[in-house]
Amino acid sequence: MKKILVLGAGKSATSLIHYLLERAEQEDWQVTVGDRDIELARHKVEGFDRGHAIRFDVEEEERKEQLIRDHDIIVSLLPAFLHPKVSKACLKIGRHIITPSYVSKEDVSMNEDFEKAGLLFMGEMGLDPGIDHMSTLQIVHDIENRGGNITAIRSFTGGLIAPESDNNPWNYKFTWSPINVVLAGQGTAQYLKDNKRKYVPYNRLFSLYETYNIADYGAFEVYANRDSIIYLDKYELNNIPTFIRGTMRRQGYCDAWNAFVKLGWTDNGFPIVGADQLTYNDLLEAFLPKTENGKSLRENLADFLDIDTSHETMSKLAWLGLFDNVKIPLKNASPAEILKDLLEPKWKLEPQDKDMIVMLHIIDYELNGETHRYKANLIVKGQDAENTAMAHTVGWPLGIMVKLLSQGKIKSRGVKIPIMPEVYEPVLKELEDFGVLFTHEDSVLVG
Amino acid sequence: MKKILVLGAGKSATSLIHYLLERAEQEDWQVTVGDRDIELARHKVEGFDRGHAIRFDVEEEERKEQLIRDHDIIVSLLPAFLHPKVSKACLKIGRHIITPSYVSKEDVSMNEDFEKAGLLFMGEMGLDPGIDHMSTLQIVHDIENRGGNITAIRSFTGGLIAPESDNNPWNYKFTWSPINVVLAGQGTAQYLKDNKRKYVPYNRLFSLYETYNIADYGAFEVYANRDSIIYLDKYELNNIPTFIRGTMRRQGYCDAWNAFVKLGWTDNGFPIVGADQLTYNDLLEAFLPKTENGKSLRENLADFLDIDTSHETMSKLAWLGLFDNVKIPLKNASPAEILKDLLEPKWKLEPQDKDMIVMLHIIDYELNGETHRYKANLIVKGQDAENTAMAHTVGWPLGIMVKLLSQGKIKSRGVKIPIMPEVYEPVLKELEDFGVLFTHEDSVLVG
Repeated sequence: MKKILVLGAGKSATSLIHYLLERAEQEDWQVTVGDRDIELARHKVEGFDRGHAIRFDVEEEERKEQLIRDHDIIVSLLPAFLHPKVSKACLKIGRHIITPSYVSKEDVSMNEDFEKAGLLFMGEMGLDPGIDHMSTLQIVHDIENRGGNITAIRSFTGGLIAPESDNNPWNYKFTWSPINVVLAGQGTAQYLKDNKRKYVPYNRLFSLYETYNIADYGAFEVYANRDSIIYLDKYELNNIPTFIRGTMRRQGYCDAWNAFVKLGWTDNGFPIVGADQLTYNDLLEAFLPKTENGKSLRENLADFLDIDTSHETMSKLAWLGLFDNVKIPLKNASPAEILKDLLEPKWKLEPQDKDMIVMLHIIDYELNGETHRYKANLIVKGQDAENTAMAHTVGWPLGIMVKLLSQGKIKSRGVKIPIMPEVYEPVLKELEDFGVLFTHEDSVLVG
Repeated sequence: MKKILVLGAGKSATSLIHYLLERAEQEDWQVTVGDRDIELARHKVEGFDRGHAIRFDVEEEERKEQLIRDHDIIVSLLPAFLHPKVSKACLKIGRHIITPSYVSKEDVSMNEDFEKAGLLFMGEMGLDPGIDHMSTLQIVHDIENRGGNITAIRSFTGGLIAPESDNNPWNYKFTWSPINVVLAGQGTAQYLKDNKRKYVPYNRLFSLYETYNIADYGAFEVYANRDSIIYLDKYELNNIPTFIRGTMRRQGYCDAWNAFVKLGWTDNGFPIVGADQLTYNDLLEAFLPKTENGKSLRENLADFLDIDTSHETMSKLAWLGLFDNVKIPLKNASPAEILKDLLEPKWKLEPQDKDMIVMLHIIDYELNGETHRYKANLIVKGQDAENTAMAHTVGWPLGIMVKLLSQGKIKSRGVKIPIMPEVYEPVLKELEDFGVLFTHEDSVLVG
């Protein structure tokens, strides 16, 4: 018997917990789900004999260590900044740990210790990061095995809304932490293009998007996602002239979102004191550098954005209520918090809404004197607002990884991300059973 | 006898220490100067019988408290984030404290405790903040006493270079922490205009400057300085429709500096890995969104900035070496650190250089049915790179404040900034003896 401990029972945990509990009998697992809110944990294991709910607080040192000691494999779904408190305990006590979060520099510094202890810390084991790594490396390794020379890797992912549930002008709804969507992209994005580094500061990120088409689904915009360059090392690849990871949105989103960046409404660093005495109108005017009298607020905003009032960005903003004479319901909130609060009800997933994951890899390579372009794309739709494609594609890879580790099929040790065949082959194969299926296309570029 | 303790013996401490030591005999003071670098402290008190140098480390709790207990008045010139460690000890032990640093929310929260203990915490007692507060309030209170109704306060300060030492196209040299100059303005500036709040995010701060002339000195650009709105409360003023505090630069500076903001070169949040393998050329190209082949880097940058290659911004940038094929001397440094390193030798004050403080207040008021505009400006020049106007105008107000407190002439208690007549009247009066002298002009606006 193997004992699995899942830490965190929030929205993103459901698919993982169900994956584990549905196989608990067959795999002879006991599955413990811990959360600060024990009711939440109880709800998630309900109806499964082998599921156990406990109250878990990462700050209770002794209890945390006892729990880890009592289990064989730990999956941490805690917020990223709390991970070190779990991973360090796993190292001390001697347990494998799996997480969908980004592997930080601090995590990497424990690589040798995990290796020496014969333990695996598998990070970035969800969707993005996660399935993106696995599917990219599967293609890349296959091309290399065929003798190809990779010249460009472009890898894009978006958590979007399925066309059948898409009924707003932004073509977007929240399937992920709303405040993180509002703050997305702050800092400087980095990637490689034609052997040269490119840096994109936040103030230009949403104006530098590129547009890509996916058959049957139309046009998507892509903006650069954080630091792509570090992944060349992490992928154990060198000398790839073009390498970029990006985030996908529906056409028109980036221009419209850029209005908020230009205005300064995504700043989370200071409070608008007494915001509840202002309307959205007032706040907009307060952020506009010039407001010409005799012009409407809408016209002044269009002037500021250097677009016509009939531009689709203007209708997107109007649909959000930006020009409404309605009081802001928050007292001392940052612009980013006010924006999140405005967006939340408008971009809310309705109970029957289906979300949609889109992933697109475009990989160029040379083989036998020809230049090939390899395209792979993935579309995954959710069932409803509870069982989202987002939760599935984060939870299933974690669950499959638990199974592989539990079955002793993974030899990798140390602090890793899923780039090795022994991981991505079985994980991607099993994901296909769930309908997580890429469409592949390889063509020779002429010219 | 009164014992004065000055904490921090850096560049900005010289004028203060000399002010105190030159009056120590007459006022019957003993002056102790503490710094982590005792040699620095020794150098500053050299030749003065009543000056004593000690090694001081704010982290050594017991020694710190003993020192504070052994003195009557404490002046803290430590970096702002270390202040609380001194102010809290002053409160505990029962000593007055004076500092040129901004008064934080944390400081304000100790107001009642300082009041109850019969102690004064006088913050923002330097130049800007400091002399700006005092000179503004002196004018404002005078107008109010004459029955005037203030409708606008605009208060601007710049630490610049005197015309006779001005030999670079930026018309700027460092008289203040270089990295703080590079990072200046990050966040969102706030002010009041015609009874409406205005917010200016960093990405627009340097394009929204206004230009003002000062007789004999020509044109200056002003950009909004941090949060002006909180000063309405701090000044104990209400219902002033227009209120803005700003930073002054020479004409042409803001447009040129904005090139760095647009490029993303003022980001201090991530390292350019292996920057030493790049030239400034390379780095510039890496930050440019598009570089058209067949065009020079200079032309591509001009396109990006939407200016002609003959624009003065381009010559300013070229003068810094931005287009030079020279390797960056730093290994893993942030863009902001690389920029600071590039600027430091170019904007260095030469030994005989004179710096120049410029301050300008423009205050509108109504009196007897007329609208007046009151202008006050201040020009203070330094002697040389050691005895700068910057160091003088920060150090002298602190020194005068020590004297007033020591003589029992200040009744204010609590956490304050210098807005009360009992402080600004004697301080501004004595500053005049040092040549810190405002030019005043009051005119009736027609129309």
